Amino acid sequence: MISSETFGFIAAALTTIAFFPQVIKTWRTQKAEDVSIFMLIMFITGLVFWIVYAIQVNALPVLIANVVTLVLNGIILILKLTFSK
Amino acid sequence: MISSETFGFIAAALTTIAFFPQVIKTWRTQKAEDVSIFMLIMFITGLVFWIVYAIQVNALPVLIANVVTLVLNGIILILKLTFSK
Repeated sequence: MISSETFGFIAAALTTIAFFPQVIKTWRTQKAEDVSIFMLIMFITGLVFWIVYAIQVNALPVLIANVVTLVLNGIILILKLTFSK
Repeated sequence: MISSETFGFIAAALTTIAFFPQVIKTWRTQKAEDVSIFMLIMFITGLVFWIVYAIQVNALPVLIANVVTLVLNGIILILKLTFSK
């Protein structure tokens, strides 16, 4: 029987590194026209709130997962803004 | 002083409903070429693991947030596959 903690770790890993292929795709194609800027801004704002929450409740795994996701989504946003010029 | 729980709720709300603008954009433009399919598949797989985890540890807020996020990302994936034909 797989422990619930294992499911949590796999979940956190997948929903974090999932944004890596988007970074690669956007970098390679130099296009992110179809990616919603409102999604990126809302998602990034939400991640900042997750980071504040993680620091307040001292939850290191939540902190790490959200910092990595924030960095990846920050890169996607910067690439989108750069290539849309 | 804002409680950590409030930060958590705002965080969960934002990282969940963030995908709604992407659904609207993809629906309107009928294009999701720049959205990485590997991101969607990895993210959706991760959300399924979050749902399993939430059921196992009996965490209703985690369950609700991830079910909503799963539905929205499932719609984005279906729209992407439909419009790429």
